[in-house]
Amino acid sequence: MSTDANLRDRAAKVVPGGMYGHLNAALHGPGYPQFFVRGEGCRQFDADGRQYVDLMCSWGPIVLGHRHPAVESAVAAQLAAGDCLNGPGPIYVELAELMVETIPQADWVMFSKNGTDATTQALMIARAATGRTKVLMAHGSYHGADPWCTPSPSGTTPNERADLIEFTYNDLASAEAAAARAEGPDGSDVAAIIVTPFKHDSFEDQQLAEPEFARGLRALADRIGAALVIDDVRGGWRLDLGGSWETLAVRPDLYAFSKAMANGHPIAAVTGVDALRGPAQTIYSTGSFWFNAAPMAAAKATIETLHAVGGVALMERAGTRLREGLAAQAAAHGFAINQTGPVQIPWLSFEGDATLEKGMFWSSACLDEGVYLHPWHNWFISAAHTDADIDRALQGTDAAFARLRAKFGAD
Amino acid sequence: MSTDANLRDRAAKVVPGGMYGHLNAALHGPGYPQFFVRGEGCRQFDADGRQYVDLMCSWGPIVLGHRHPAVESAVAAQLAAGDCLNGPGPIYVELAELMVETIPQADWVMFSKNGTDATTQALMIARAATGRTKVLMAHGSYHGADPWCTPSPSGTTPNERADLIEFTYNDLASAEAAAARAEGPDGSDVAAIIVTPFKHDSFEDQQLAEPEFARGLRALADRIGAALVIDDVRGGWRLDLGGSWETLAVRPDLYAFSKAMANGHPIAAVTGVDALRGPAQTIYSTGSFWFNAAPMAAAKATIETLHAVGGVALMERAGTRLREGLAAQAAAHGFAINQTGPVQIPWLSFEGDATLEKGMFWSSACLDEGVYLHPWHNWFISAAHTDADIDRALQGTDAAFARLRAKFGAD
Repeated sequence: MSTDANLRDRAAKVVPGGMYGHLNAALHGPGYPQFFVRGEGCRQFDADGRQYVDLMCSWGPIVLGHRHPAVESAVAAQLAAGDCLNGPGPIYVELAELMVETIPQADWVMFSKNGTDATTQALMIARAATGRTKVLMAHGSYHGADPWCTPSPSGTTPNERADLIEFTYNDLASAEAAAARAEGPDGSDVAAIIVTPFKHDSFEDQQLAEPEFARGLRALADRIGAALVIDDVRGGWRLDLGGSWETLAVRPDLYAFSKAMANGHPIAAVTGVDALRGPAQTIYSTGSFWFNAAPMAAAKATIETLHAVGGVALMERAGTRLREGLAAQAAAHGFAINQTGPVQIPWLSFEGDATLEKGMFWSSACLDEGVYLHPWHNWFISAAHTDADIDRALQGTDAAFARLRAKFGAD
Repeated sequence: MSTDANLRDRAAKVVPGGMYGHLNAALHGPGYPQFFVRGEGCRQFDADGRQYVDLMCSWGPIVLGHRHPAVESAVAAQLAAGDCLNGPGPIYVELAELMVETIPQADWVMFSKNGTDATTQALMIARAATGRTKVLMAHGSYHGADPWCTPSPSGTTPNERADLIEFTYNDLASAEAAAARAEGPDGSDVAAIIVTPFKHDSFEDQQLAEPEFARGLRALADRIGAALVIDDVRGGWRLDLGGSWETLAVRPDLYAFSKAMANGHPIAAVTGVDALRGPAQTIYSTGSFWFNAAPMAAAKATIETLHAVGGVALMERAGTRLREGLAAQAAAHGFAINQTGPVQIPWLSFEGDATLEKGMFWSSACLDEGVYLHPWHNWFISAAHTDADIDRALQGTDAAFARLRAKFGAD
């Protein structure tokens, strides 16, 4: 029995189903290992010692590569002094200052722990500012796993979702119609419009935000007096260090960040504009570990390193090399594929593969060939992916395409 | 200008109000430092180098003393291999097994990050199990800072709290009346009763749970088919390693843990009974850092160390020594005080001090004398508090009583 299978058997006794959430290998596809023991740069090692070129980056958090020395030494130094104390350390101020410098939209920052904490806190601030209740969100967008936003209704109540009104991503008219549904005799009841910087819903080709859609949401929010919230938890720190919609020159009132902010260490943040500083002070939002200093030290080192090495450009280069390589391979093997999303947060689907039969087979074949990517969730590139690493990944994907052709034939 | 004042000025520019949440020194009382730089055993050092005997333990998380070597070496070893990977490490299984062994109620565990994650997840599981919506909770109880439970209504909507029905702690008849209010034509709509193991509301004397109240809630939950949830986030790992209501021989269907579970490292957990294993598998609850291995290594080392050193007994001894010492000092100085709650999670109030005038003055005087405790929130003892440390704290509290008498006169 493999070590992974043995650990799964043990886990099944002491955790419901053995595993849960987005890292549950049972959801990923045949052959996916559940347990991992080591990360090193852009490589990960599973519990049975198999090594992968890691194109998932732990579902986003790893942006500089695993165990980046600048980040880990900052963490070690902070842990050696103190981490969870009766108040924050000076690092709290230093990190907040660095974020306000780095993010043009940001006049201030509030820290938390989960991406869900940040999206939830952003909505609280918007509601405190407006005295309104409703939130417009795109149908199918993932904004976290609290009862108000978790994709599964199990365990949630109708009341917990009663303040949401859905629109369609990249369809401005649908957002305006959603806003109209929250129009009452006292005016709009929309506190916030929350949107991801691009459409990155699972099981679907990704969509970049159309500039008119982004500008239109900004104008709509201004017109009805609602806060525009960008949920940059997944996109943040890969497209633009100033926030993902800097690429579109559209600035939200509130940004929610987490995942890649501290290269895997647990932290999240909301940044906001001056007008929301007062309302932000009226909410009560906190957690036992929100002011821990070590993850803040990790975040500061991560952001500084991303600046210093030109992290976004490195990820663009690596992502472009991967995209071009995959396109050439698919063409050579005779497959019609769609590659969508920013190259730093890519995804590949096979044309006409609604059942994911090809996608699942190909992803599992990539695993066998030492490349860890995903059949139905977007992938993530890090600044640690060199040309040689991408070329190593492309060796594996090429072999997987060959196996796919042997199994299904070319398109 | 002190370093603390300088940091506060800088923070005020980049964080709304400079600080927020339970560690906001502006809420604590005159003279409370905001910034801390070092912890060592049961001592903390603020940004100006002042040293305190720490009777707050970072509001609970520090249960073995700051920077406990067994915990920190486990963290360092895990960080050196990998922390945030594409799946959990073997430590996930080892920690779950240890918790199931340690907690008689626990047939299984699910991990998360914040105490609020654990209480929220517990309610989701209860709702998934019952198909019901309502939750009974004690008026004034703190169960976290999500919109459904945060003590401030600012930024929350009526819908987000519409599924809660309140009762009075230690008043079983009020809980039965609350359950009756959720009685409909199809039977009870109560999914869960959530309760803290003792009443530890801010600004109030604490109350231990009366055994008949605890047993009565268990019977009520059984009668109406609801889950009994103990929110042991604050109490857990100090009263009984098997869960705080083991002291009363009452077992809930779900326990929520966090704070002291990993001696300051960020992790939370729900433990549950077999009957809820299936429903727990139906909810979708996850977070980017929930499966990080380093905090799990910290939790395993913390729980093992608490077992090995007899941590609960050490805290009882230290807490008893503190309580007896404070009682003698108050009597000697002529003050009538109330010392409430378990000795490991103590609080002191002055009789007739509804405005906290005496409590605030005395706590600030304790600070000056090198003792960090709190005027309106319960304190926390750790296993690192030796007799000598308690005696050092009592030197400070004695001087503070003398200053209180000089200011206000004896009662």
